[in-house]
Amino acid sequence: MSRIDGRAADQLRPVRIERGWSKHPEGSVLVSFGDTRVLCTASVTEGVPRWRRGSGEGWVTAEYAMLPRATNTRGDRESVRGRIGGRTHEISRLIGRSLRAVTDFRALGENTVVLDCDVLQADGGTRTAAITGAWVALADAVAWARRNKLVKSKAEPLTGAVSAVSVGIVGGVPLLDLAYEEDVRAETDMNVVRTGDGRFVEVQGTAEQAPFAREELDALLDLAAAGCAELDGAQRAALAAG
Amino acid sequence: MSRIDGRAADQLRPVRIERGWSKHPEGSVLVSFGDTRVLCTASVTEGVPRWRRGSGEGWVTAEYAMLPRATNTRGDRESVRGRIGGRTHEISRLIGRSLRAVTDFRALGENTVVLDCDVLQADGGTRTAAITGAWVALADAVAWARRNKLVKSKAEPLTGAVSAVSVGIVGGVPLLDLAYEEDVRAETDMNVVRTGDGRFVEVQGTAEQAPFAREELDALLDLAAAGCAELDGAQRAALAAG
Amino acid sequence: MSRIDGRAADQLRPVRIERGWSKHPEGSVLVSFGDTRVLCTASVTEGVPRWRRGSGEGWVTAEYAMLPRATNTRGDRESVRGRIGGRTHEISRLIGRSLRAVTDFRALGENTVVLDCDVLQADGGTRTAAITGAWVALADAVAWARRNKLVKSKAEPLTGAVSAVSVGIVGGVPLLDLAYEEDVRAETDMNVVRTGDGRFVEVQGTAEQAPFAREELDALLDLAAAGCAELDGAQRAALAAG
Amino acid sequence: MSRIDGRAADQLRPVRIERGWSKHPEGSVLVSFGDTRVLCTASVTEGVPRWRRGSGEGWVTAEYAMLPRATNTRGDRESVRGRIGGRTHEISRLIGRSLRAVTDFRALGENTVVLDCDVLQADGGTRTAAITGAWVALADAVAWARRNKLVKSKAEPLTGAVSAVSVGIVGGVPLLDLAYEEDVRAETDMNVVRTGDGRFVEVQGTAEQAPFAREELDALLDLAAAGCAELDGAQRAALAAG
Amino acid sequence: MSRIDGRAADQLRPVRIERGWSKHPEGSVLVSFGDTRVLCTASVTEGVPRWRRGSGEGWVTAEYAMLPRATNTRGDRESVRGRIGGRTHEISRLIGRSLRAVTDFRALGENTVVLDCDVLQADGGTRTAAITGAWVALADAVAWARRNKLVKSKAEPLTGAVSAVSVGIVGGVPLLDLAYEEDVRAETDMNVVRTGDGRFVEVQGTAEQAPFAREELDALLDLAAAGCAELDGAQRAALAAG
Amino acid sequence: MSRIDGRAADQLRPVRIERGWSKHPEGSVLVSFGDTRVLCTASVTEGVPRWRRGSGEGWVTAEYAMLPRATNTRGDRESVRGRIGGRTHEISRLIGRSLRAVTDFRALGENTVVLDCDVLQADGGTRTAAITGAWVALADAVAWARRNKLVKSKAEPLTGAVSAVSVGIVGGVPLLDLAYEEDVRAETDMNVVRTGDGRFVEVQGTAEQAPFAREELDALLDLAAAGCAELDGAQRAALAAG
Repeated sequence: MSRIDGRAADQLRPVRIERGWSKHPEGSVLVSFGDTRVLCTASVTEGVPRWRRGSGEGWVTAEYAMLPRATNTRGDRESVRGRIGGRTHEISRLIGRSLRAVTDFRALGENTVVLDCDVLQADGGTRTAAITGAWVALADAVAWARRNKLVKSKAEPLTGAVSAVSVGIVGGVPLLDLAYEEDVRAETDMNVVRTGDGRFVEVQGTAEQAPFAREELDALLDLAAAGCAELDGAQRAALAAG
Repeated sequence: MSRIDGRAADQLRPVRIERGWSKHPEGSVLVSFGDTRVLCTASVTEGVPRWRRGSGEGWVTAEYAMLPRATNTRGDRESVRGRIGGRTHEISRLIGRSLRAVTDFRALGENTVVLDCDVLQADGGTRTAAITGAWVALADAVAWARRNKLVKSKAEPLTGAVSAVSVGIVGGVPLLDLAYEEDVRAETDMNVVRTGDGRFVEVQGTAEQAPFAREELDALLDLAAAGCAELDGAQRAALAAG
Repeated sequence: MSRIDGRAADQLRPVRIERGWSKHPEGSVLVSFGDTRVLCTASVTEGVPRWRRGSGEGWVTAEYAMLPRATNTRGDRESVRGRIGGRTHEISRLIGRSLRAVTDFRALGENTVVLDCDVLQADGGTRTAAITGAWVALADAVAWARRNKLVKSKAEPLTGAVSAVSVGIVGGVPLLDLAYEEDVRAETDMNVVRTGDGRFVEVQGTAEQAPFAREELDALLDLAAAGCAELDGAQRAALAAG
Repeated sequence: MSRIDGRAADQLRPVRIERGWSKHPEGSVLVSFGDTRVLCTASVTEGVPRWRRGSGEGWVTAEYAMLPRATNTRGDRESVRGRIGGRTHEISRLIGRSLRAVTDFRALGENTVVLDCDVLQADGGTRTAAITGAWVALADAVAWARRNKLVKSKAEPLTGAVSAVSVGIVGGVPLLDLAYEEDVRAETDMNVVRTGDGRFVEVQGTAEQAPFAREELDALLDLAAAGCAELDGAQRAALAAG
Repeated sequence: MSRIDGRAADQLRPVRIERGWSKHPEGSVLVSFGDTRVLCTASVTEGVPRWRRGSGEGWVTAEYAMLPRATNTRGDRESVRGRIGGRTHEISRLIGRSLRAVTDFRALGENTVVLDCDVLQADGGTRTAAITGAWVALADAVAWARRNKLVKSKAEPLTGAVSAVSVGIVGGVPLLDLAYEEDVRAETDMNVVRTGDGRFVEVQGTAEQAPFAREELDALLDLAAAGCAELDGAQRAALAAG
Repeated sequence: MSRIDGRAADQLRPVRIERGWSKHPEGSVLVSFGDTRVLCTASVTEGVPRWRRGSGEGWVTAEYAMLPRATNTRGDRESVRGRIGGRTHEISRLIGRSLRAVTDFRALGENTVVLDCDVLQADGGTRTAAITGAWVALADAVAWARRNKLVKSKAEPLTGAVSAVSVGIVGGVPLLDLAYEEDVRAETDMNVVRTGDGRFVEVQGTAEQAPFAREELDALLDLAAAGCAELDGAQRAALAAG
């Protein structure tokens, strides 16, 4: 069986990580997984939200959104509708948790980093591209904060890297990094967030069309682990290039 | 190691499923997992949302909410704040997907069932109790719809049962069905939704404090599978008692 | 003439006041007027709203809401609609005013009690059941605040009891404590809130179908006064039982 | 005892009813009770809300609002806050119910009249002035609808007149038509809506500072009845002048 | 060619500026440009918004709104819709900027003046009438603030007068101060805000039906300048009359 | 006097118009005016808004927004705040009007084109860049609609080109195409929208710090006209390149 775009079942789409895409943010990355394109910016501010003040600890949070015509059919703006949809909320929370899992808040000190992940073009896997790109933007922002004396601790605020990929079962076959056309046909769909050293941060598997057996789950986890290892390499390469 | 309430690591809290708790809904269940108490009502209406009209297929959806003082500290009402929070959205969507995974929409015909899951008292595991109770309310509502000639197909609209349980790693030990105090201390937390015949519908694992290894993930899945099997029995017993 | 449920014109439905229904709140009461069932919880917090700080006086407020399927037909959630309806606002304000009428804010000290009245099942008279139950929850909460040294004054924060009942003219006959079916057919509908010592706190009479004469108003007030006296007894009994 | 402005206890403030104040609406009245000034406009449209279509019956509804600086201190605009307050909701509903109590919807036919009552200047009694003025605007609008063939029935859509006044106990003395300064000092406050033929449409009494006895309630009702009779005369005179 | 109401092309409608229309505000003006009638009130409060505190400078801002039936057809209330429309925002901002252009914030000191411009009746040119009337209300409010020692500086907080008028090309002819019927037929529409000493504060020209040439633009600016000069005279006369 | 970036007073920043930047929209342009970068996408749908149905005429509308970190300091998302700000509303309306001024709706037929202008990076002049880029995206979308038989008329739906530029007086000198740093220091600021054949569509001049004389206005208009002529050339070149 061959995939729409001719990839092997365990092959990622071409991944591109462009650092410094925008001039204002402390970190900014335009990340592409194939035709999926997400602009990730990291904004550093001194201070933390009220509930964390005086703790000596920092905070990292994220907001995800899609431009109205990032998709094949135009969607309404959430600002115009006056409310954020459940899917947007869910993904913003997922990105934030994923990045916080590799952050040492004490080392960060009382600083806040906000990651904005805006999908400029969507073709499946926007949330996993967002996590993968946002981590690089976060790394740049933390380095900026160190250079500008906002981070004072000797310890490194980032305890490791984090990347994410989607996997799914399409026509009975487990596939890595689903493009949109594959995603809509998937029986089961899973997003996996993994650290650079091979541990899991999030595993979210959903039976889209049919419940899945334990063996299928295991196969998907294997596929995702290999994909994340590859993404981890791309992240390192991007940071090294800088 | 013994748990707060003296349970074994693989032991559920006492589960109670009271059918017919309210007089108006077509199905209503007050479900308890220990001190967690959720009122699940199923409302049947003829017809489906606009986007599904003329398809010959029905629809099942869910809304989850918490009473302000279901928790230890009073929370603001979402109606007063004028917006639904991300967590509420996420759980409502999870419950709806879980129930749809065992629904044959063609057999249901153009009818809609709305499941309202209102947490009257919270002590951990509210979403898993909600799914487990909502399925029983749904079963009663579907039977009502059959008796009242809204369901005309010979096929059974419910293709199986579905139940859910939380598992987590606390102090390095995998535990089943976390109470609130365990939940806040968990390093890793996972919600698993499973069909009566042992397949997975949703697997959502999150590293709350530390990323988790593949072996830990496997241990949690085993624990959850056993717990769901037990809940499946409780659901059958409740329906049989009717 | 006999009523739907066989009651005499001046007879209340069976009243049940279950204290301590929930484990978290400082006061919690499940009150039933026949099939109308309202969960009233009282939450005590130290401190008062900004506009009252430094006054040495406390505050009591209330929020009323209905579960979506408390009624015969499912209603939309106000949190989903993103705004609270006029009826909900009106009733929340009525409950708050009623309880404040028997509160000595100076004796309460700078503490706030929030009464949440959530209708689990509706069959007419939800606002009057809510007031009657909320007062008992408030009494328990004030006692808790005294035991926990939040209330320091020697004076008693509650200057008396308060209860409420609906009355109406149905088919030309004044009736006490209308059930839903009576309520929709009523020509005139009145809610009366009365103190334990027989004075009025609120009188809200509305001509639903026909304006009413002064004699009718007088008859309704008599009926309500007798009903409230009986409810006052039920409240005392419930508190004594504790 | 003499009142702030020298009135007797049972004396209304000067009442002015200017018809035709605005050129666009089908009925428009600037009503003044002393310094309280409310612009009441009646807008007639063919057709009724969706839930009433095909019934052959019309509809009357009202919206009340205050200009931000109608009061002594500027209040925030509800449009800016993005939500309508409970008080506004309550009063809008009261005005609507009061006018519907004297409307024969079958005679009105499938037409809708919206009454907008905007307080230009507030000095107590804004809701009672609004009801009193709105009824005159409604009468003009109904006459317009008859002239323009929207009302076809031979029956008169208005079955009678309706007016309203506030009464209250201030310093132990029952007073008619409270000005703002009296209102804030009132122990008890009551709004009474009455038909031209002397029956009650709404009675809303509230213990602001102290519960009230039955005799006090009776005295207030007497006072209000006399005040409304006088207002009824002013309404007739205004209509006759046209 | 003669205009609907017989005016010459360069003739204003009758302008009326009634000061002190309301009793509560520090400045209040009912301004009429023909049938367009706007109530402008100025509210003074000590202190400034948070972002300006400690600057020693004051603030002036404005809110514009229309009563629902100010227009020929009733419009929905923005408070009911829960959001302010783009047109309202635009005009509020325009009024605020216009008044700030003639305010010396240092002379005003840390005081805030809010101008509320509520359109009671609309017949074209509501924003220009609002600016013209609001400036007079502002002048009264500033004088009040001086008398009440809120303004302490010797310098005059108002550096000059400001007024506004609409101009447009209708049927190829440049006209001054368009009434509603002219406005809807205009090919080009322009609002001009000018100081008393003849300089421009705002020029907003829009091609409603056809792009306009530079010569047309020049003709409109000439017409507007003359109109504003006349309005400046009316403002001075109104203030002198006080 | 030399400008920050060394430009002459009448010199545009480098302008770049990249067509086909996104794969989904019917027209998409990434436009840059120096460091200001706006993604303009045009979405074509068959049919028109309800109020225009059956007219035989199409519709063109626009929505403008900024990514949170497009600016030097991160701004809150309007979707998170739950309301669109006045500035956003104003600019969206301006873009829509500008494009409609060169559209023949009858030739377009009952089709709708929505222009989304999302500012990816801001450095002054975002609204003028948006108009300039959106017109090119619109041209591509109209061509697409013609190729796909949605446009059936022989007449060309676009009656001409439209572009926009900002001008302002900084330190007494009229300058073309202000960068952000110039914009904040400008005494007067003007946005001019002009057709390809040299007529005006919008002229919006604002005295930011000091009212401006007629001669200054004239100088700014001359400068803007020259700038727009140059932009018109860039638009033609971009379209020719396709």
